Amino acid sequence: MLNIGIYGGSGRVGSLLIKNLQNDEVAKVSCVHVIEGIEIEVPGAVVTNDIDTLIQNSDVIIDFTLPEGTQALLEKLLITPKPLVSGTTGLNDHQINLLREVAQKAPVLYATNMSLGIAILKRLVALASEKLRDFDIEIVEMHHRYKKDAPSGTALTLAEFAAKARGLDLDEVRVSGRDGNIGERKKDEIGVFALRGGDIVGRHTVGFYNDGEYLELNHTATSRDTFAKGAIKAAKWVVSQEPGLYTIDDCLGL
Amino acid sequence: MLNIGIYGGSGRVGSLLIKNLQNDEVAKVSCVHVIEGIEIEVPGAVVTNDIDTLIQNSDVIIDFTLPEGTQALLEKLLITPKPLVSGTTGLNDHQINLLREVAQKAPVLYATNMSLGIAILKRLVALASEKLRDFDIEIVEMHHRYKKDAPSGTALTLAEFAAKARGLDLDEVRVSGRDGNIGERKKDEIGVFALRGGDIVGRHTVGFYNDGEYLELNHTATSRDTFAKGAIKAAKWVVSQEPGLYTIDDCLGL
Amino acid sequence: MLNIGIYGGSGRVGSLLIKNLQNDEVAKVSCVHVIEGIEIEVPGAVVTNDIDTLIQNSDVIIDFTLPEGTQALLEKLLITPKPLVSGTTGLNDHQINLLREVAQKAPVLYATNMSLGIAILKRLVALASEKLRDFDIEIVEMHHRYKKDAPSGTALTLAEFAAKARGLDLDEVRVSGRDGNIGERKKDEIGVFALRGGDIVGRHTVGFYNDGEYLELNHTATSRDTFAKGAIKAAKWVVSQEPGLYTIDDCLGL
Amino acid sequence: MLNIGIYGGSGRVGSLLIKNLQNDEVAKVSCVHVIEGIEIEVPGAVVTNDIDTLIQNSDVIIDFTLPEGTQALLEKLLITPKPLVSGTTGLNDHQINLLREVAQKAPVLYATNMSLGIAILKRLVALASEKLRDFDIEIVEMHHRYKKDAPSGTALTLAEFAAKARGLDLDEVRVSGRDGNIGERKKDEIGVFALRGGDIVGRHTVGFYNDGEYLELNHTATSRDTFAKGAIKAAKWVVSQEPGLYTIDDCLGL
Repeated sequence: MLNIGIYGGSGRVGSLLIKNLQNDEVAKVSCVHVIEGIEIEVPGAVVTNDIDTLIQNSDVIIDFTLPEGTQALLEKLLITPKPLVSGTTGLNDHQINLLREVAQKAPVLYATNMSLGIAILKRLVALASEKLRDFDIEIVEMHHRYKKDAPSGTALTLAEFAAKARGLDLDEVRVSGRDGNIGERKKDEIGVFALRGGDIVGRHTVGFYNDGEYLELNHTATSRDTFAKGAIKAAKWVVSQEPGLYTIDDCLGL
Repeated sequence: MLNIGIYGGSGRVGSLLIKNLQNDEVAKVSCVHVIEGIEIEVPGAVVTNDIDTLIQNSDVIIDFTLPEGTQALLEKLLITPKPLVSGTTGLNDHQINLLREVAQKAPVLYATNMSLGIAILKRLVALASEKLRDFDIEIVEMHHRYKKDAPSGTALTLAEFAAKARGLDLDEVRVSGRDGNIGERKKDEIGVFALRGGDIVGRHTVGFYNDGEYLELNHTATSRDTFAKGAIKAAKWVVSQEPGLYTIDDCLGL
Repeated sequence: MLNIGIYGGSGRVGSLLIKNLQNDEVAKVSCVHVIEGIEIEVPGAVVTNDIDTLIQNSDVIIDFTLPEGTQALLEKLLITPKPLVSGTTGLNDHQINLLREVAQKAPVLYATNMSLGIAILKRLVALASEKLRDFDIEIVEMHHRYKKDAPSGTALTLAEFAAKARGLDLDEVRVSGRDGNIGERKKDEIGVFALRGGDIVGRHTVGFYNDGEYLELNHTATSRDTFAKGAIKAAKWVVSQEPGLYTIDDCLGL
Repeated sequence: MLNIGIYGGSGRVGSLLIKNLQNDEVAKVSCVHVIEGIEIEVPGAVVTNDIDTLIQNSDVIIDFTLPEGTQALLEKLLITPKPLVSGTTGLNDHQINLLREVAQKAPVLYATNMSLGIAILKRLVALASEKLRDFDIEIVEMHHRYKKDAPSGTALTLAEFAAKARGLDLDEVRVSGRDGNIGERKKDEIGVFALRGGDIVGRHTVGFYNDGEYLELNHTATSRDTFAKGAIKAAKWVVSQEPGLYTIDDCLGL
């Protein structure tokens, strides 16, 4: 039985991970880390506020938290490496570097989105961006009203695939809003707009617009279970890999 | 025969106005104003760079230009009043005031969008905004890559209808982009996002989002002719009204 | 405490009704009817295969089943009337008549959709259909792959609102598919298309199309909880009404 | 100068071909075929009702007509071969065979859609259909109210790409409408729905739906010019090819 440690066990995705692992035949929740003050009970699992305890009790750790939480975990993993699956979005450069350092000592799968659909969408976006060179690109994402960072990690990943296919640097061409007498659109601009509202799980549309025609590629997640199931699949896969930084595409064999 | 003067005769909508009036049975283009340096020929019409000449040769004037252009016209109309239909977007407070002053002397119809569909959409938005009080509102508009102002006048009008139905001041609640660690969405926020690309004539979506369900109301203009036809209909109507400021709804009898 | 009887307790919506009533402060599940062979346990409630037992143990009954199931219940209620909320779709004329007969003896609320959003959408559709008289109407609905009837009851209700606003008889103008050399679209046709796939909870789009512009009004249910919550609200309301046939609009005070 | 013959010169696309070739630097309209009773004037071109005259006066012929019209042309081309670009949709098996026979004697490019966007969409659909094997496929197309055949040739082409990627025979799995108590969706079904209304130039959406997520790929033509420009590009290309049956992908070098 594979022992999975859940980091962020009281979070939105954390709870779904615990629920989805209840009847799993090859893996179980061995340990759950929650922040101090939160009390939960998970049958058969150690519940702790201590990261070291989490690491000791797990064959692989799944992390869906916030950037600071992930950073604290990564600093511990530098000292005591363990296989890791992380889906935390909004990491800064320092935190990404920490991830890379841990990945030299243990297998790490990092993905801002664990769904098969998004993995495929990234490839479609890259292909369309390259072949429809004259088309303007605009990306719209929408998430529930409680999401704190914008745009979503997935939207930024999609934008990077679009930019890269044209040899563009996303930081130079990304636009997150338009307001006022801003003049005509620049050719290379890539708009990335973040809508928030209701309980939307996750919706991303990448559009390519030209004179006479346009193409819009949309992915909609209808259930957060999609992310939990993807992460569990990733955890089972990453645990038997060599140290290194992996993406969800590696796990899906794309 | 009603003599219509076209202000902005070489513009995108201006040219369509001239084309659509060619076979009209009750109205004709009597005069066309273009900016200096531009030369066009319109059979049966005076072409001029001089606003006074335009005013003298018209029973009613249609204006689809830019804010400064409209301002120059309004200043002349204050002195020599004539019925006016204006569809120029992006006017500032001073220019709106000028419009009001002219309207005390002659009938003026001002509309950021002359289509029947948008007139109806405004009413649907007001109704939905009032009845779906707990739903978050987000508006997305898209126009061709050459549009210089953002958001579109129509999007702002729709946002005002949504805000007013809830007793909100749009200036205080409007958001035009989201970027970074911005925290959870505020209840009263109204997002208004401006996409640009290709040759999109005009697309507006007003969304209402709550836990468990959402409603999205979309209007798409498939041809700029829609605006030209609406403006001609408005010109024929406004010419027989008393001085005052009218909207397209007045003309459509909504 | 209001005693609610659940008819169809093992169904998709039935289970959600039980879950949503667990912590309700003014109502509880007093009895659950399931078909023979199915075993479920609901703390504090009688579980039965017998409709009479269900009726005896309930102040009001909520029914989300299939047409034949609803018919069996209605035949019993004709003899022993009780307040009823029914959300079963696909009823035939005979079954609708039974519903009307029961409603002469007890308050009955029948709605193919219990959500606030759909209640509002119906009104928007009626308004748009009337005011946009020249626009062609096409309706597209989508539901999960297990739904057995088509089009959805909600789509048919929306189509009826659209038809009625133009004085049309839906049975005469409804089209559910187009295939072959069918010739040009007839002016009064109303297309109602049923898509099936994945786990889509419910999506309805009513479109109005004319030369130069179109309007599309979309409602999407993101969670089946929406229907369960709406039905519970309806049950609490209907129990204190006079005998009669009510719609969800009556309950929502629209 | 390349002499292009237009077959169906008074049709929707025919007129656009003539307009778009007016200022072309390497090609011109040499001859226009219209059906008897129609009179048009095209400066510098022979206008005729006789197919042989059209063939004699052209280096390459572009055909956007109806199936019977195309058949008449193909029968003549069997005797007097000439390079051909045909965009006529709704051809039956016999007519497709005629096309193949002509292609043994002259280069023939046949495409139900001449746009770059659709060419790319076909590839995206094939990729997604193969990789998202468990996802249900539903296709929705929409065209103006005057279109006589359904579903559109483009929708059928997209459906064929989707079916082929899964080893399915489209004729066996295609569904064009759902009405009544039809039971659960069959796994391999591919829905292809034809909406008609307004002046929609052409809109196609291919959707892939699974538990927890779905992907929708949409192409919208905003102007019929897209098809005319694509056909002219195709005519310039096909004229220098060997005899054979080509697709738009060959011309675009995809």
